[in-house]
Amino acid sequence: MARTLGVIGGGQLARMMIAPAIELGIEIKVLAETEGSPAQLAATQVGDYQDLDTVREFAKTVDVLTFDHEHVPLEVLETLEAEGFKFEPSSKALRFAQNKLDMRKRLAELGVPIPDWAQINSAAELDEFIASHGSVVILKTPTGGYDGKGVRVVRSSADAADWLALGKPLLVEEKVDFVRELAQLSARNRSGEWKPWQTVQTIQRDGVCAEVLSPAPNANFELASQIAERIAVGLDVTGVLAVELFETADGNLLVNELAMRPHNSGHFSIEGALTSQFEQHVRAALNLPLGQPSAAAEYAVMLNLLGTDDKNSFVEHYDRAMNTAPGAHIHTYGKAPRAGRKMGHVTALSNLSLEDARATALAAHQALQA
Amino acid sequence: MARTLGVIGGGQLARMMIAPAIELGIEIKVLAETEGSPAQLAATQVGDYQDLDTVREFAKTVDVLTFDHEHVPLEVLETLEAEGFKFEPSSKALRFAQNKLDMRKRLAELGVPIPDWAQINSAAELDEFIASHGSVVILKTPTGGYDGKGVRVVRSSADAADWLALGKPLLVEEKVDFVRELAQLSARNRSGEWKPWQTVQTIQRDGVCAEVLSPAPNANFELASQIAERIAVGLDVTGVLAVELFETADGNLLVNELAMRPHNSGHFSIEGALTSQFEQHVRAALNLPLGQPSAAAEYAVMLNLLGTDDKNSFVEHYDRAMNTAPGAHIHTYGKAPRAGRKMGHVTALSNLSLEDARATALAAHQALQA
Repeated sequence: MARTLGVIGGGQLARMMIAPAIELGIEIKVLAETEGSPAQLAATQVGDYQDLDTVREFAKTVDVLTFDHEHVPLEVLETLEAEGFKFEPSSKALRFAQNKLDMRKRLAELGVPIPDWAQINSAAELDEFIASHGSVVILKTPTGGYDGKGVRVVRSSADAADWLALGKPLLVEEKVDFVRELAQLSARNRSGEWKPWQTVQTIQRDGVCAEVLSPAPNANFELASQIAERIAVGLDVTGVLAVELFETADGNLLVNELAMRPHNSGHFSIEGALTSQFEQHVRAALNLPLGQPSAAAEYAVMLNLLGTDDKNSFVEHYDRAMNTAPGAHIHTYGKAPRAGRKMGHVTALSNLSLEDARATALAAHQALQA
Repeated sequence: MARTLGVIGGGQLARMMIAPAIELGIEIKVLAETEGSPAQLAATQVGDYQDLDTVREFAKTVDVLTFDHEHVPLEVLETLEAEGFKFEPSSKALRFAQNKLDMRKRLAELGVPIPDWAQINSAAELDEFIASHGSVVILKTPTGGYDGKGVRVVRSSADAADWLALGKPLLVEEKVDFVRELAQLSARNRSGEWKPWQTVQTIQRDGVCAEVLSPAPNANFELASQIAERIAVGLDVTGVLAVELFETADGNLLVNELAMRPHNSGHFSIEGALTSQFEQHVRAALNLPLGQPSAAAEYAVMLNLLGTDDKNSFVEHYDRAMNTAPGAHIHTYGKAPRAGRKMGHVTALSNLSLEDARATALAAHQALQA
């Protein structure tokens, strides 16, 4: 079997892959963007993931490659795949995570439920879509968006004059009147084995994930996991697949976004599942049999730790937080503090209720604030 | 708070401290004996832990130091403590883990139940002890023993002629007629907070730990944890304390051995407890509040993976083992294979029974053999 896993990108997702790799006895190497990245401990190379030669040099040191993010240029991946290097997910799958227009087209072909959408190339096309979709829509740049970036609520083409001026196609979607947002995490390996976690509810604030509740109360797991499996198989995804879903008042689920890597909505699984998303991603990338994703406790709640300013790295408040909430699992990513930055997260489990788990997580969360 | 933890020794115990350090956002550095040690990923220095200058050089790069093993010479620790460096456990505690004669004397002073023992300096003294203790006794070298080394069953001073010839004091103990062996793991921090895990049963083969059952069926947790707390406080232990116990037919518990570090009998806690012994050791060394040691499932069984030859590193058999026992948690330590060597371990949890957990662990264990 493949023994050495290479991860492109040195962020917190790469960081959190290190622990299961250590436990499994799998060697892990990271190509980091900068010195002192969250995944520093496993960083064997620092360089630009957009540069073909840099990525090739790194690829030569490992058996199989995977990703901390989806930003490696498709040409780089395709060139190296043609040279025999192995990426999980492959460029065939990853292109759909990189380009939201391609993703929408492919999901439509697969019959996966998605919001009404269109590719627009002009102000006129945008205004026409707005007129036929309740006068307010979601406009997205096909590439480069994350955590609310590259996404805009628009009521008229005038709201998007800057993006339209770039002369590139944009993705417009109906503004779904959802009652809540869900996420369906699952993983698939090259042999075709596929396993889902429980459906979770995600709560966003300012376009950034703030809370994850596992399981999502009264969620339609059967439907959510069917959608996830259809996407995983249809897009030939390997590794963890996160499917973000809108739930509408009539119980419909519509796919919002996809990620082909461990995802913020799956951090709860480090303590909350028998196999975490990070262990499963490592297993899947190496085409090992997948672990059991079943819950380790009835309920889990994860709260993100967002930077409050450029000083509080939260670590100084561990004493207070651990005393206040001994049952909370506190994680920080070793990042320099900055307001709004994802600095860490807190997870708490409970066999009583989501409210009980949330109270524990929240007590730690509050104690960690400056 | 202290932010950077230094671990002296690069073995599997140091390796398994890396994962919780990553999760907690604590920087961890390892002084390893050799290149390519199990804890290689965090090794920032390679050198001889017996050399004062080497250890001092390492100590300067961290806030607080702890250990993968108890073999750092006491003089080195005492010298560096006098210079202001902080070790957890300190030399004051660690001397009892380093010298079994000192340990027996101190436990006797504390009123902790231990086997009958004596310090002997001659063949005559040994034969006298044998005569008064059922004609078979356990002889131990006070220092340097582990995994059955430095321990011998003797029926006459002739059985120990080589050790007696060294002219150094030896420890002799009655051969306890025990019905089983238990271990009581606990942890204590510098502030005095102390927390025990459940009492476990350990099953040794050829002097090496083979199996750990958690919890030990019908064990006297109250007594075992009382003993552990008396030792932890009485010896001023910080970090994880492992107390190995003999259980006699009448339900008495006698202290066999001590270790002041994470211990093989506590590996089950990685998945089997809300806070693993490795996370707890990291917390305790940094004098952070301790996590909850309560069980994550009703039952946990850990089986050691001992090297079968100089080829099987077990990793080649992951496919088979993970398919056979999807619920098993497989760990390997990245060591070069050698017959009898501790290469890894397998843990399985169950809410049904120890037998159920053991069956899962055993299925994986067997599938990992060549």
